[in-house]
Amino acid sequence: MTPVRLTSRKNPALQRVRRLLTSRREREAAGLYAGEGTKLLSEALRWAQLDTVVLADGVEAALPEDVAVYRVPEEVLASLSTQEAPQGAVFLCRTPERGPFVPRPGMLLLDGVQDPGNLGTILRTADAFSVPVALLEGCADPFGPKTVRASMGAVFRSPPVLTRWEEALAACRAAGVPLAVTALGVDAADVRRAPVRDLAVVIGSEGRGVRREILENADRTLAIPMGPACESLNAAVAAAIVAWEMIR
Amino acid sequence: MTPVRLTSRKNPALQRVRRLLTSRREREAAGLYAGEGTKLLSEALRWAQLDTVVLADGVEAALPEDVAVYRVPEEVLASLSTQEAPQGAVFLCRTPERGPFVPRPGMLLLDGVQDPGNLGTILRTADAFSVPVALLEGCADPFGPKTVRASMGAVFRSPPVLTRWEEALAACRAAGVPLAVTALGVDAADVRRAPVRDLAVVIGSEGRGVRREILENADRTLAIPMGPACESLNAAVAAAIVAWEMIR
Repeated sequence: MTPVRLTSRKNPALQRVRRLLTSRREREAAGLYAGEGTKLLSEALRWAQLDTVVLADGVEAALPEDVAVYRVPEEVLASLSTQEAPQGAVFLCRTPERGPFVPRPGMLLLDGVQDPGNLGTILRTADAFSVPVALLEGCADPFGPKTVRASMGAVFRSPPVLTRWEEALAACRAAGVPLAVTALGVDAADVRRAPVRDLAVVIGSEGRGVRREILENADRTLAIPMGPACESLNAAVAAAIVAWEMIR
Repeated sequence: MTPVRLTSRKNPALQRVRRLLTSRREREAAGLYAGEGTKLLSEALRWAQLDTVVLADGVEAALPEDVAVYRVPEEVLASLSTQEAPQGAVFLCRTPERGPFVPRPGMLLLDGVQDPGNLGTILRTADAFSVPVALLEGCADPFGPKTVRASMGAVFRSPPVLTRWEEALAACRAAGVPLAVTALGVDAADVRRAPVRDLAVVIGSEGRGVRREILENADRTLAIPMGPACESLNAAVAAAIVAWEMIR
């Protein structure tokens, strides 16, 4: 569509973009999510269903005809952005339909990964290694702006399935896919010698690890060996090592 | 020492802590750096040379006699913190002496890793896997508060050596340690089949990768295989995969 020029920060269309950037509830109610920056926009053009694009003056982008386009002064774009340095564009995408949880050998289940940077990084890594991901309870919104940014477009290509632990447990049992958790512990199997590509592996939250309920029901416990002075790895790093072992 | 109670945000001792949290130049001039939170403080007590501790009212900590201790109201602590939710303590440590760069097979060299979260995560992972790290030009301050936090205490235990590319190149050549870079490219060797534990591997910056000067002088180019739609991995994830291959 022909770009519409807007100059007021209070324009209702821009207020809507701002709400979608900041509120998970608004995103879920609207079936839309927001991304920022021209680099992510180029990924969204390839992989996502674009709805609306807000471009700063002077920024060029070849956009399809069915996308609503607004042109705004740079300071108005900055008023929308959640980043310190806004990067030329903010855009809305339609949230993709996501199917039911399907258990698969060699997949990741994320439990309470609350940090959007970690969640996005895990989605980026899993997409790079073609490892499927499902989110259990307590994870950050996969369509929040920080997650979308850290995923570098992976949420556009490979949106994660949402499920619940009880549902995932029942489905894995029915399909015969063994469940594993990563943890520290004397009875944990070294991930280098475990059949990781046959397992669905749960990665726990940054602070508390995997919930007791999951620990108690898992078929296996895996450990990533590390020095005695270290308590743990970053959740995104632990997920990366496990995903790497799945495709190695 | 007996805690000294301070209630003014403008107290010079607190102003100094604030400056050390926010300015790399101040940190380097003073030979001190700052960390935040009671969890990190317990790591600093084990591994770092503590100089000063600022505790919020009500927070308990067993501190050695030679440490200066200030007690402050919670809102004064909040005025020091760089985090949204201050976590009970801010503290200063003496920057450790760091020796010269020593080339070793199975080490990481970081080039322009500017994101303090990524840098801290790499230091945490390398410490967990006992892989030495040296920083080339353009990296974030390893003793900045975000790096210290993301490192989860690894900077206390294993402070990275600082060097420059020309110096690192000459030292590796003299010691017979081959240099490798990670990159995308048709002539890159799959990291799974390369002798990674014999190499010093350069990890490039998040945005621009490894500098041309380094690419041209490296003995080998390594690739982490990934799906065709992916451009790259997060720098901390790429470093984790390489470090893992060094100890695998």
